[in-house]
Amino acid sequence: MTLLRKVIMALTLETINETSVAALEIILAKAESAFGTWAGTTLIARSEALELIADRLDEASDELIQLAMAETHLAEPRLMGELKRTMFQLRFFAKQVLGGEFLNVRIDHKDDEWPMGAPRPDLRRTMQPLGPVLVFAASNFPFAFSVAGGDTASALAAGCPVVLKGHPGHPALSRKTADVVLTALADAGAPEGTFDIIFGTRNGAEALADCRIKAGAFTGGIPGGRTLFDIASGRAEPIPFYGELGSNNPVFVTPAAEAERGESIAREFVTSFTQSAGQLCTKPGTLFVPSESAILDELRNMELPSEAPLLNEGILAAFSDGKGRLESHDGVRVLNDSTSRTTGDASPILFHSTLGQIRRAPESLLAECFGPAALVVTYENVAELSEVAKLYEGQLTASIHGTNSCDVGSLMHVLSQKAGRVLWNQWPTGVSVTYAQQHGGPYPASTAVQSTSVGTAAMDRFLRPLAFQGFPDHLLPAPVRDSNPLGIPRQVNGECV
Amino acid sequence: MTLLRKVIMALTLETINETSVAALEIILAKAESAFGTWAGTTLIARSEALELIADRLDEASDELIQLAMAETHLAEPRLMGELKRTMFQLRFFAKQVLGGEFLNVRIDHKDDEWPMGAPRPDLRRTMQPLGPVLVFAASNFPFAFSVAGGDTASALAAGCPVVLKGHPGHPALSRKTADVVLTALADAGAPEGTFDIIFGTRNGAEALADCRIKAGAFTGGIPGGRTLFDIASGRAEPIPFYGELGSNNPVFVTPAAEAERGESIAREFVTSFTQSAGQLCTKPGTLFVPSESAILDELRNMELPSEAPLLNEGILAAFSDGKGRLESHDGVRVLNDSTSRTTGDASPILFHSTLGQIRRAPESLLAECFGPAALVVTYENVAELSEVAKLYEGQLTASIHGTNSCDVGSLMHVLSQKAGRVLWNQWPTGVSVTYAQQHGGPYPASTAVQSTSVGTAAMDRFLRPLAFQGFPDHLLPAPVRDSNPLGIPRQVNGECV
Repeated sequence: MTLLRKVIMALTLETINETSVAALEIILAKAESAFGTWAGTTLIARSEALELIADRLDEASDELIQLAMAETHLAEPRLMGELKRTMFQLRFFAKQVLGGEFLNVRIDHKDDEWPMGAPRPDLRRTMQPLGPVLVFAASNFPFAFSVAGGDTASALAAGCPVVLKGHPGHPALSRKTADVVLTALADAGAPEGTFDIIFGTRNGAEALADCRIKAGAFTGGIPGGRTLFDIASGRAEPIPFYGELGSNNPVFVTPAAEAERGESIAREFVTSFTQSAGQLCTKPGTLFVPSESAILDELRNMELPSEAPLLNEGILAAFSDGKGRLESHDGVRVLNDSTSRTTGDASPILFHSTLGQIRRAPESLLAECFGPAALVVTYENVAELSEVAKLYEGQLTASIHGTNSCDVGSLMHVLSQKAGRVLWNQWPTGVSVTYAQQHGGPYPASTAVQSTSVGTAAMDRFLRPLAFQGFPDHLLPAPVRDSNPLGIPRQVNGECV
Repeated sequence: MTLLRKVIMALTLETINETSVAALEIILAKAESAFGTWAGTTLIARSEALELIADRLDEASDELIQLAMAETHLAEPRLMGELKRTMFQLRFFAKQVLGGEFLNVRIDHKDDEWPMGAPRPDLRRTMQPLGPVLVFAASNFPFAFSVAGGDTASALAAGCPVVLKGHPGHPALSRKTADVVLTALADAGAPEGTFDIIFGTRNGAEALADCRIKAGAFTGGIPGGRTLFDIASGRAEPIPFYGELGSNNPVFVTPAAEAERGESIAREFVTSFTQSAGQLCTKPGTLFVPSESAILDELRNMELPSEAPLLNEGILAAFSDGKGRLESHDGVRVLNDSTSRTTGDASPILFHSTLGQIRRAPESLLAECFGPAALVVTYENVAELSEVAKLYEGQLTASIHGTNSCDVGSLMHVLSQKAGRVLWNQWPTGVSVTYAQQHGGPYPASTAVQSTSVGTAAMDRFLRPLAFQGFPDHLLPAPVRDSNPLGIPRQVNGECV
């Protein structure tokens, strides 16, 4: 046993212990008392604090990567890329904070001639942070959707303290990352309570029900996520709950695309559905191809990637269930199974079915199967695709592979109503963190269809509007003062200035 | 009995009948089938349809006002002002639709050097209407928050068909207004099903639970509103529910303001709390004044306005309950009661209590009492105000009356966390429809703290983001095409253009 392994085991034993009732109470009380101060921090100071967290993660990266490899079984290059993305997210939000666009400032000057029938008062609207936010870390992104991940970064950027519920799949990494965040925030002058970590499923549920928590964010499966959504909605004061619960991410290939580049579509599909052992919320779960398609032959005959260990036992068990559901279905057969070459239960596998079978049993065939499995569905008539697309529940993504001559209008129309992001000749995995990104969608892709958990708009989840009416300039907060001391973009009397 | 009265009674008997199960099913099916067409209507056509509704309301205004007077007991000038406001709202949203800012378009060009660690794809994000919306009409604004009111206007403007649940307090007016809207939409070329009206409490609840409805909007009391919120949140696919459930709208007067203009504050307060017989969601329910205040004497000795009939028996009963709760409280005494001069149970009345009493029983003393009653609370020390402000639940508004020399920082800080709109030396009644207006607030002021039901941002309630990745220009919807054919403001690569 290596020294590192011993350290991890010791840390795990310590941190996997649930946070005590007394400690949880202290953490919630501190988050509440930190709120006013952190919310009132200048944009510059808040931005610098986010930058410092990124810098400190960078400094600790060797140790963090080692811990992540040991606890998650994900490969080093993937983890290094994810940590880089995580630092980028923090710095991207730091830049957004400085820009001030997220404050969405609108100023109406007094107007005695306002045509409504009564004078318009002086009104100035800006965004306020909601209050302490409870973030549930995900297992499949131990950096980017965990302790210092996108939800934490966007909530801190919005001015909200964060109580982070650590994922039991990587407790030592969670503890270490939390320590990095805590030290960076303290060194940046943030008030105590701006961030803290808790462990334990029950503690997560109790914190979510606590009146000091004003929003929740979660990435995970439907049963647990729905339970948490119901807790958040059932409180005396219901709060927004941003749960990303599952997505099948269908991909539709037109006959023209198949004819033009069927082989590369087949290869790219396999790369996409087996990436990170299929443990991505945007993994393409269904590929629709023409019957008699060369893609089908290609997929049947190619060598699938080798088995990679899954994140933890729970995910392995869920994957086996999902695979079993497809295997045991009358209308489904195995198209390509790498199991014969490998030893474990997590071998990449492809199934095949037909559009007719999908119509008969959409619930079981179109559900998400988290892990390295996917279903290839052959169709006879391209016009049927928009009908079958209607059978899907809400999706994070839906993709079309076509050519410029394809008439995909009605399919795009249906997919635009089903998904948060629609792609053309690209693959849904590898979610870029950008200004225009949308990562969410109709339920169960998200419990909050109007939000995104990736991209600059992710901050909006933790903000609420507040208007000031009739105040003299010296009493107003900086964003809405006449002189625009922050130099931020604002709408004045309906015009952007 | 006048002819008009006979017509109203006949209409009432007809329309107060609940919509039948079969008719409800047809209306929901038509709303669903209208969605794609109405959502895809050009911005110009959608804007013109809203304008036409306003024009047709104008043409029918005489009949509408007569019906409203007979059914709501509200005074003619108030109703004429409200109808004018309603037409203004429709035209204001018509203008917003044309402007296209509500689409919040963000475009990221492909960037191979994107510092995240992987190339950025071409991403284009715009807003999509959610789907058919169920709007529950309010009783206290038979035009502005009823059939053709703000929720209907903003949902139609967003591209959503509207199923309107009529309020039983003004059924004949509701039927007539619905006919005006239906005819205008048909004449504007909107698809059948873009709008329709239903009656019956149970039908409202069943429609809200129906999977074809994608959002709900409501203005009313806490018990009914919370029941509806729970239905919307408990669905297999939970949907956003915008409920505005109640607000006390406290007003805090500093000693300096009292000294400077106590008499006018007293007079303005009485005007504000008795306006429309106190049946406004922004009615100031509590006035905090210094003890030994001249304001108290002024309020004790002035003649309160005469009794005005309340909207309906239900509201009268609730008002009597609320008044009784205050009357029977040990720490509350009557300050000024106009009942002796009048005959009914809806006479304006003012109560008096102290800060110490409020601290002992905040729940009963700070709850909303809908109707012409208010509580005056005397305080000893201005520093106590920010502490007592913390006892409030979420509010639509909170107001401060002060002078430029007052130190109100900590009070503003607390009120900013409690309310959606904070006012200075103004009164909360008379909500202006503007770009910067915010009408909402923490629960129970709103079940959706991040939304507003008044002002241009009200459209956001019925929209969701959708991103397109990697599409060629000719397949993209107009708002995100390279050439910007709609000429709308857009963010490109993080910069507004």
